[in-house]
Amino acid sequence: MNKKQAKNKTLDYFKKAKIKITKSEMERIEITDLGLGRLEEIGLQILTYVNTDRYCAKEMVLFPGQTCPEHRHPEIDGEPGKQETFRCRWGKVFLYVEGNPTPSPNCSPPEGNKDHYTVWNEIVLDPGEQYTISPDTKHWFQSGKDGAVISEFSSTSKDKYDVFTNPNIER
Amino acid sequence: MNKKQAKNKTLDYFKKAKIKITKSEMERIEITDLGLGRLEEIGLQILTYVNTDRYCAKEMVLFPGQTCPEHRHPEIDGEPGKQETFRCRWGKVFLYVEGNPTPSPNCSPPEGNKDHYTVWNEIVLDPGEQYTISPDTKHWFQSGKDGAVISEFSSTSKDKYDVFTNPNIER
Repeated sequence: MNKKQAKNKTLDYFKKAKIKITKSEMERIEITDLGLGRLEEIGLQILTYVNTDRYCAKEMVLFPGQTCPEHRHPEIDGEPGKQETFRCRWGKVFLYVEGNPTPSPNCSPPEGNKDHYTVWNEIVLDPGEQYTISPDTKHWFQSGKDGAVISEFSSTSKDKYDVFTNPNIER
Repeated sequence: MNKKQAKNKTLDYFKKAKIKITKSEMERIEITDLGLGRLEEIGLQILTYVNTDRYCAKEMVLFPGQTCPEHRHPEIDGEPGKQETFRCRWGKVFLYVEGNPTPSPNCSPPEGNKDHYTVWNEIVLDPGEQYTISPDTKHWFQSGKDGAVISEFSSTSKDKYDVFTNPNIER
């Protein structure tokens, strides 16, 4: 799947979720495979609605079974790391954060990447459900079999400072 | 229309907009007539998804032709007033902010309240369109004939500090 195909697929998910976006927003949807070249399994599709020096809001799409790899948002220049709320709008998302490991989690890490997934406290989000991730907390997430559309409400996004557990990842 | 009827009507709008909310969220939808006792004309229905010390996200419903009266979010203890982005999800919203008055605006203030509406720079938001209101800027908004569902992304909400142009309003 190339980037154009991925963008069209992302637009299909917005349609399924009945989320309207403008033409100029369609143009600037971000498709990222995080430099791993395995987009269908590992990656994320993002439309940033607004990102000011005070808050940020995005709509994110995960394709079926696609994983956004483990990362955290560290403190920057004395300011606490990004705090973020994930709200499932459509589909299903499995979110993993620091804390007591869930005994039989629903998801497995992408093949060959097991060592880069270290937090196993599972939160299941169905449409209308949300969870707020504390700053500087490791987390990763994977969608269910139908994919997912997730709204993210947060403090300012500074993606280039994200720290991924997998050292091969480039954001 | 009493508060229970208004809540049920609000839920109808979330359904029309295909926005899923949880049962506990249904319970805590805020219906406010801003103390004026004319809810169908003047008021707002709000579901606050999250409001931390860093950001806030809400879903707002306006009934057909309902007006949220003119107000601003002032600086508090040296911190800039609330900055907020309105994103129309369903229906149509007419937003008025400070700036050059629009020659033939689409809306009129609620009857008998004309003096309390002083800003006339009109922004029309259809589904998928959004606008960011600067801190401490007077604004008011009214929905079109079908009502509207609007997402609000913002810095932290501190509603009790809102300054309304109409001195009879209690938030």
